[in-house]
Amino acid sequence: MTTAGESHGPANVVIVDGCPPGLALDGEDLRADLARRRPGQSRIVSQRLEADEPEILSGVFEGVTTGTPIAVLIRNQDQKSQDYDAIRDKYRPGHADFTYDAKYGRRDHRGGGRASARETVARVAAGAIAKKLIATAFGGSVVGYVVQVGDVVATLAEPVTLEAVEQTPVRCPDLEAAARMQALIEAVRKDQDSIGGVAEVVASGVPAGLGEPVFDKLKADLAKALCSIPAVVGVEFGSGFAAARQRGSEHNDPFVIEGGRVVTAGNRHGGMLGGISSGMPIVLRAALKPTSSLPREQATVTRAGEPTTLVTTGRHDPCLLPRFVPVAEAMVAIVLADHWLRHKAIAG
Amino acid sequence: MTTAGESHGPANVVIVDGCPPGLALDGEDLRADLARRRPGQSRIVSQRLEADEPEILSGVFEGVTTGTPIAVLIRNQDQKSQDYDAIRDKYRPGHADFTYDAKYGRRDHRGGGRASARETVARVAAGAIAKKLIATAFGGSVVGYVVQVGDVVATLAEPVTLEAVEQTPVRCPDLEAAARMQALIEAVRKDQDSIGGVAEVVASGVPAGLGEPVFDKLKADLAKALCSIPAVVGVEFGSGFAAARQRGSEHNDPFVIEGGRVVTAGNRHGGMLGGISSGMPIVLRAALKPTSSLPREQATVTRAGEPTTLVTTGRHDPCLLPRFVPVAEAMVAIVLADHWLRHKAIAG
Amino acid sequence: MTTAGESHGPANVVIVDGCPPGLALDGEDLRADLARRRPGQSRIVSQRLEADEPEILSGVFEGVTTGTPIAVLIRNQDQKSQDYDAIRDKYRPGHADFTYDAKYGRRDHRGGGRASARETVARVAAGAIAKKLIATAFGGSVVGYVVQVGDVVATLAEPVTLEAVEQTPVRCPDLEAAARMQALIEAVRKDQDSIGGVAEVVASGVPAGLGEPVFDKLKADLAKALCSIPAVVGVEFGSGFAAARQRGSEHNDPFVIEGGRVVTAGNRHGGMLGGISSGMPIVLRAALKPTSSLPREQATVTRAGEPTTLVTTGRHDPCLLPRFVPVAEAMVAIVLADHWLRHKAIAG
Amino acid sequence: MTTAGESHGPANVVIVDGCPPGLALDGEDLRADLARRRPGQSRIVSQRLEADEPEILSGVFEGVTTGTPIAVLIRNQDQKSQDYDAIRDKYRPGHADFTYDAKYGRRDHRGGGRASARETVARVAAGAIAKKLIATAFGGSVVGYVVQVGDVVATLAEPVTLEAVEQTPVRCPDLEAAARMQALIEAVRKDQDSIGGVAEVVASGVPAGLGEPVFDKLKADLAKALCSIPAVVGVEFGSGFAAARQRGSEHNDPFVIEGGRVVTAGNRHGGMLGGISSGMPIVLRAALKPTSSLPREQATVTRAGEPTTLVTTGRHDPCLLPRFVPVAEAMVAIVLADHWLRHKAIAG
Repeated sequence: MTTAGESHGPANVVIVDGCPPGLALDGEDLRADLARRRPGQSRIVSQRLEADEPEILSGVFEGVTTGTPIAVLIRNQDQKSQDYDAIRDKYRPGHADFTYDAKYGRRDHRGGGRASARETVARVAAGAIAKKLIATAFGGSVVGYVVQVGDVVATLAEPVTLEAVEQTPVRCPDLEAAARMQALIEAVRKDQDSIGGVAEVVASGVPAGLGEPVFDKLKADLAKALCSIPAVVGVEFGSGFAAARQRGSEHNDPFVIEGGRVVTAGNRHGGMLGGISSGMPIVLRAALKPTSSLPREQATVTRAGEPTTLVTTGRHDPCLLPRFVPVAEAMVAIVLADHWLRHKAIAG
Repeated sequence: MTTAGESHGPANVVIVDGCPPGLALDGEDLRADLARRRPGQSRIVSQRLEADEPEILSGVFEGVTTGTPIAVLIRNQDQKSQDYDAIRDKYRPGHADFTYDAKYGRRDHRGGGRASARETVARVAAGAIAKKLIATAFGGSVVGYVVQVGDVVATLAEPVTLEAVEQTPVRCPDLEAAARMQALIEAVRKDQDSIGGVAEVVASGVPAGLGEPVFDKLKADLAKALCSIPAVVGVEFGSGFAAARQRGSEHNDPFVIEGGRVVTAGNRHGGMLGGISSGMPIVLRAALKPTSSLPREQATVTRAGEPTTLVTTGRHDPCLLPRFVPVAEAMVAIVLADHWLRHKAIAG
Repeated sequence: MTTAGESHGPANVVIVDGCPPGLALDGEDLRADLARRRPGQSRIVSQRLEADEPEILSGVFEGVTTGTPIAVLIRNQDQKSQDYDAIRDKYRPGHADFTYDAKYGRRDHRGGGRASARETVARVAAGAIAKKLIATAFGGSVVGYVVQVGDVVATLAEPVTLEAVEQTPVRCPDLEAAARMQALIEAVRKDQDSIGGVAEVVASGVPAGLGEPVFDKLKADLAKALCSIPAVVGVEFGSGFAAARQRGSEHNDPFVIEGGRVVTAGNRHGGMLGGISSGMPIVLRAALKPTSSLPREQATVTRAGEPTTLVTTGRHDPCLLPRFVPVAEAMVAIVLADHWLRHKAIAG
Repeated sequence: MTTAGESHGPANVVIVDGCPPGLALDGEDLRADLARRRPGQSRIVSQRLEADEPEILSGVFEGVTTGTPIAVLIRNQDQKSQDYDAIRDKYRPGHADFTYDAKYGRRDHRGGGRASARETVARVAAGAIAKKLIATAFGGSVVGYVVQVGDVVATLAEPVTLEAVEQTPVRCPDLEAAARMQALIEAVRKDQDSIGGVAEVVASGVPAGLGEPVFDKLKADLAKALCSIPAVVGVEFGSGFAAARQRGSEHNDPFVIEGGRVVTAGNRHGGMLGGISSGMPIVLRAALKPTSSLPREQATVTRAGEPTTLVTTGRHDPCLLPRFVPVAEAMVAIVLADHWLRHKAIAG
């Protein structure tokens, strides 16, 4: 996957190279997840209006992938670049304005340019292709959901379905917690503030054997994929940070035979051992910081090094989690598709 | 960096390609960190005896790097492969025995083969080169230390030095906590058990501007590098998972001018914004699960699918954290060196 | 550089990642070379009509590159896909119809799909960026020209300029030979046939030191870049195949001092020694086979394995050389830009 | 494949990553080709004495590959570094001395360091693994031979076998031409000179469908692999440069059905169409310049920029072709193995 595009440029584009031939694919396959990521879908997200209509430019012939690169173009529509004139020469706290200047000596300041989460629209398009590939290839599926917003933590008893996730705009399948999360998000927005949270992603149906032994462990590539998404500040697998308090005798998942195949009793290991999938569900969680853009005054400095203040106008999500879910799912699906292809190369 | 080698094979080897010419380098540069990773260094780690003597095979001429690939060879010495005969056909819980069989249809079972943490000896050798490079190139340094073992959590007031880390075999600079950690590790070992923990790594002196904007964000590559190390089950940056509970108004670090340059008041962002270094110290933490190998009986299955039990003999660390520290430092230094080279390519 | 697009799909697109910031760039920079590659530019090339208008989608802000990926979109316009219905189930001799079917089990047969030289439009767009980069960075320039069509061989006395190349539609700076080449091309076209040839490309102003020592030698990457272009069947550097008949004492170029710097007397080595640029002009030649598409009847087989015949309709170049020149220049410029960036990483 | 090592350093090493598990492999598999490349094998090659004994360090367990990286170590023995003291500060014509200095600001001058053809010993070890892989996987084989030395050109009527190649030290299966080649090589050596030549490599049994459509065409990767070998100054496929004189009607190979499968009548296309293998034998030729090292006086300059002369002592091949053959075969086998794995990923 290779992408290009800025928040307020003409378009975002993604090229997916290496998708096997013979996969049925059309724009409809991409639209469902793009709609889940789209701004304006509910009161608790950014009100920027984008059709996010994907145009497949290549790699699909008569409704089926040909094996050649698939390019998808998504035009930007509702840029209000003048909203950003005030930050042309000011560094927004928590944003990449300063670091881009430090790196490149210049930046497209409009809407955050390449550093805007607008670029994730291209990932979701690619992720929809990956989801279709892993479903077709090995019956794999990926579902994400919000498990924490601020101090509100969900309680989940059983495997979560996409339908359960989509019941609420906050994308938390614990309906009681979802209601409190939504109330919290609306409260911080009224308070001209923002709030962080945690999402969990589960990949089911993944066969044992995906992942490479050392540097390209499946967990390593998943960690990279998740941490490449804006605002992610942590990722954990299975028991995660809670494992730091555990003893081996309570953490280890014993192997047992179930239905004639090797599985584990429990899944504290999160579906990967030695960096290679075990056949159990892959379970990971990502922590997101609160949205950096705030409609309240913050202290900062100018490019020239003068102290100043700024109020971020523009349209922003008071909590990033609800729209993060499809992006996280996309990245997980892409990593799984990649590793499935790599695995086929040596063991196909 | 490319590595090869198994726990009980003849040797581990690493090839470092892309190291700039002109860096003074000899075996002595590698030995200090190799000694910190070496088994047998204290009572609380594995008692396998390895000299871990590095032989530089190439890329250095008259004590200085030439710009061509640097290969380092480290022979294995103290394999007790017969200790592992019992697991030739049994899957150790928490280990990669089953997943390697699922992937490759076979495995070198002796000492865990390629899945053994023995391979990290090659990373530490490469990391020593990277540390020297970043020190020479931009005055960068990387120091890691243990901040949690089980329920024992360190309290740290100020920047940690290598000297402070090396005061105790547990590598926790909070001496009071270190004593309790060591007692805990010895207790779990007597109890034929193991315990998890958390290490923190700080990279100082890193200039603003390292990292790529989207997929190869610095935090993404650091997350991958850390999660490629055996037993790591989570990684977080700056505030990390605690940011999930924070509001933007408390999380954002305001920019200020200090000594004529742009810095932030506070470092909740952990030294990276938009995936690019900010010039502030890079701060990350990794969670490690408890050692999977236990000298007590555990339930499992055989390759043939029969229930059985096993007791892991061989020599193992009851807590992985003390020897994890130099490995984590190595991986951080390597990522920083890579990104510094990448940055020079476009902005040098 | 990553590209996507088929001959008769909606568009071709290229993403150029890694272009340094601060390079002045707009559509005008791309149009000159696109016009040189465009079909319909003269009587001796394909009469397909394409505006080949480039749309820069990203990576450029206020007329200057930002350092983020540059995407360029070029829509296809004059597809006459029905011309290709006859080959849906027949394998054209010399074409990739059969090999794509063998690889992918299917293909977009319209105009050759991804195997069409239509994809080179994306390379020329990227090459224009690379040309601008190497000119700005080190005063480098790349010029190509036709030195042989069939039995007509050009005689060239001195360095060739772009102006000299563009004097004739056949792009041979030896005007007398150019006239005979053009006559030959028109004769083979009337004869419903095609003809091969050789182009030479010279890169001037390239500093000594570009290229990697072993696998990524500059000559290796140039050979790959040239041989990735459709119809190229050979590439040679400096003396090339003629060196097979030479003795060392006549082939070696002695080093001499000229204007205070080390140069060679003569350039039989073609500007690279040990795979690294020597500072002398880089000189290479590529041989192209005659166009495979012929408007005369040829024997072949169907997908079902039945013998048949076909006449290729559609619009084709009777000789590929004139339009090959800008494509070859683009690929050489891209390789030089890449190696300049790689070199800066370690020696910048 | 990743390699490291200098001509006069302690050793050369190669790491082969991605070799599938289950391939029977031991040192014996590597020794045959290493012996064909070894210096001192006949009167017409360099008299340096090297055992070239390979030590497999990893990736093989109980005689079978495990799927993890295979490292092979080959120690250097017969360095006579003092032979090279004279060139510490002089640039040998035709060598990489000057370009390495220009790139790196320093070099290991002993025996040419990394630029010496000594590094090809690592390629031949990796190539032996690749040969075994392609033989096991699809019955593929690669055989190379010398077809030209100076003005002596071989005439070959039918497919060449390894046995036919190994009949003479010059590795030309046309015995009459071989005798004249050998006489020529001995004559130039007595004349303190060297001579160039051409080798042909044929890969048989390669299934249709290997290769990628655009940048990683099979012919592109083969061209790169061949041109990465020291002294190669040109490469061509099938008809090669002779195709420049051909018309389409004589060059195109018609498809026909033979034994129920699609083949071509003739093989002017050299086994690849659209960059993808056609199932016909892959045929390529590489031109090598005459050895640059000459035991006669040549004019050159010093590092300090002073005119001087030098006589290259040390031990050198008066003609590189005989020992080039196994190196070229190795590189072709490696590229085929790589593309077979890539092909399996999407179509396995």
